[in-house]
Amino acid sequence: MIAELITIGDEILIGQIVDTNSAWIAENLNLIGVSVNRIVSISDSKDIIQNTINEAFINANVVILTGGLGPTNDDITKSTLNEYFNGNLVIHESTLEHIATLFKSRGLGLTELNRKQAEVPDCCTVLLNKLGTAPGMWFEKEGRILISLPGVPFEMIGLMKNEVLPRLSKLIINQIVVHRTIQTFGLPESFLAEKLSDWENQLPKQVKLAYLPSPTSIRLRLSAYGEKGSNLQGTIESEVNKLYKVIPTYIFGEGDITLQEVTGQLLKMSNTSLSTAESCTGGTISHLITQIPGSSDYFKGSIVAYSNKVKEELLGIDPEIIRVNGAVSKPVVEAMAKAVKTKLKTDYSIAVSGIAGPDGGTLDKPVGTVWIAIASNKSLYSKEIRFTSDRTRNIIRSSATALNMLRLMIIDENI
Amino acid sequence: MIAELITIGDEILIGQIVDTNSAWIAENLNLIGVSVNRIVSISDSKDIIQNTINEAFINANVVILTGGLGPTNDDITKSTLNEYFNGNLVIHESTLEHIATLFKSRGLGLTELNRKQAEVPDCCTVLLNKLGTAPGMWFEKEGRILISLPGVPFEMIGLMKNEVLPRLSKLIINQIVVHRTIQTFGLPESFLAEKLSDWENQLPKQVKLAYLPSPTSIRLRLSAYGEKGSNLQGTIESEVNKLYKVIPTYIFGEGDITLQEVTGQLLKMSNTSLSTAESCTGGTISHLITQIPGSSDYFKGSIVAYSNKVKEELLGIDPEIIRVNGAVSKPVVEAMAKAVKTKLKTDYSIAVSGIAGPDGGTLDKPVGTVWIAIASNKSLYSKEIRFTSDRTRNIIRSSATALNMLRLMIIDENI
Repeated sequence: MIAELITIGDEILIGQIVDTNSAWIAENLNLIGVSVNRIVSISDSKDIIQNTINEAFINANVVILTGGLGPTNDDITKSTLNEYFNGNLVIHESTLEHIATLFKSRGLGLTELNRKQAEVPDCCTVLLNKLGTAPGMWFEKEGRILISLPGVPFEMIGLMKNEVLPRLSKLIINQIVVHRTIQTFGLPESFLAEKLSDWENQLPKQVKLAYLPSPTSIRLRLSAYGEKGSNLQGTIESEVNKLYKVIPTYIFGEGDITLQEVTGQLLKMSNTSLSTAESCTGGTISHLITQIPGSSDYFKGSIVAYSNKVKEELLGIDPEIIRVNGAVSKPVVEAMAKAVKTKLKTDYSIAVSGIAGPDGGTLDKPVGTVWIAIASNKSLYSKEIRFTSDRTRNIIRSSATALNMLRLMIIDENI
Repeated sequence: MIAELITIGDEILIGQIVDTNSAWIAENLNLIGVSVNRIVSISDSKDIIQNTINEAFINANVVILTGGLGPTNDDITKSTLNEYFNGNLVIHESTLEHIATLFKSRGLGLTELNRKQAEVPDCCTVLLNKLGTAPGMWFEKEGRILISLPGVPFEMIGLMKNEVLPRLSKLIINQIVVHRTIQTFGLPESFLAEKLSDWENQLPKQVKLAYLPSPTSIRLRLSAYGEKGSNLQGTIESEVNKLYKVIPTYIFGEGDITLQEVTGQLLKMSNTSLSTAESCTGGTISHLITQIPGSSDYFKGSIVAYSNKVKEELLGIDPEIIRVNGAVSKPVVEAMAKAVKTKLKTDYSIAVSGIAGPDGGTLDKPVGTVWIAIASNKSLYSKEIRFTSDRTRNIIRSSATALNMLRLMIIDENI
């Protein structure tokens, strides 16, 4: 079954809101084996809506429309669909009752505009919207299905879960889809692609691979499409197992997991604790770690030593070491890692010192030069990395690199 | 000028990512007077891409494509456009140099895949992508323009700002649009709307107002549309002046400025310095402040005291005060502010202690209870706030509230 999504309303076209509805609908259609062919955002105009529906039905057998069902004059989806399907608008009694109850509970009476919301084309199946006033509508014509839903996200989600997905599931008998996402860190996309080329070339035809890069990971998404009964789960499983053998240390998790979540889980599992001493990352590592609920179990705190005076006075770094080597150097970052670990009495520590930019670079240490150290009760490891000239990106890449170095050290020492 | 946006890639169609690029592009095209007619998301398929471009050119004179420009096999936008415009792929020397430099700075050599990223159709104008490896491309044919940009948001934004928007602006000659955005903090949207209703009702017809809320501000965007020669700038100016009189203390700046930038500017202007002591915000305030280039001029550092032990040992908070009042209390947060200010020898300090959630709430102090203190050489001010049950939102709202309290104190003491 192939679907097309149409969102109606100017808010999206002028960039006032981001269209999160389509992503939600697409994801949930995919999970029941309906693939989404196209997503289109258009304005509140009768001709455009009708033309877009005609276009959509060329390739899709299900069209889901969201938006344009409000009570005001600029909401024309319902009247447009009524015309498109040659219907007549009639009052839908249980919707009217539901709206009246809703307004009564707020101490309000029914206005003419509210009554009009209970009107529906007599040629559709009404999907009762328990969470709002605009009913959903399900039309069928010549073997094709058109579903109209309100644009308010939680009302749309309610109708999709309670009405649309169960009805569509019943109609799908043949096809299935399986997805799996593997998170990697540490290899740029082109290097990763080269390392994976043999594996990629031997993938079975029904498995598709996509690279999804971000500053904090490159996700590899495997999707398998097939007929009901085929063992897609098994096919994907066996390909993923091969993948783990090709790039074992670069994979840090699956699905939506982040480096800070994985590192947190490892600290929890090994019953160890963490502190950070941050210079150029300015508290970003601490910020990322404490985004995770329950992080207080393993994270004790951080010293953000942005000025050299704070490095000396709060972390106790010998001013002479800073003078001789510079603040962005192996001896300083290693001393920072040792100091914060001792002061905050933790099992592990991270220290970062670098030149985030845009200023502060030298010929010897250009903008993007970053030293990272990881200390444990057994070892001390540090590394110099050269990032780019973009400040925000340098900070987030340094933080992710530090978390990944910690991840590898915990695995090495505990597993 | 009418534009259509096309995003290419399965990630959006399977709902794995939300399409934030289109909203950004649409908003910024609108700002220069280009209206967006339609936004379409399609998959990586040559025929579909070419058909969608043909369809788009029926109504639009500018088409902007994003995505599908990566180095891997699933990225086919470049070859598809090359074929569509009957071009030949040739190496673009300055892009190749740029890619080589980028990889060299990371200590990496060039692979064949990287070299291929420097190939472009010989029938386009190359838009050099300083922030990544995939170049942007600008095609013109029969008076129509097609622009292809990478899908990575910060690369797309860089190319739009530096190349696309300036070029398109030059092509628009008759219409003018003037926008002005006022940033406010401290009043919820409905309260702000009520306070502004008289002012809003008297706005001239050609001026439109939009409320753009986010966790860290509510932006008020005024847009005036008219023909070249009309004094839109003057009209907007006079309306903004009235606005400043209605909500003087709630306005913290204009345009894209953030609370951390404004606060930084105030610290710089008053030649004063700042430190922070963070518990529930976990380094987020420090992270926000150090995002700003040059923040080392006024920001000295932070003590992220996530555990009570760190509050006692590193900040020197009397354990008895914590025992009697709890860590989330006026005495503790005020002691934290004083301690970090003294230890880091700064003129101002911020301290935050709260229950971010999802756990840790009590009947007395439910999740979302946050104490914030601001200390200066002259005064100490603290405040309790009740946020919601959402952890991420509580952390960002606490951080923004603390920055805004600091802003008001600096203004009060220095201006």
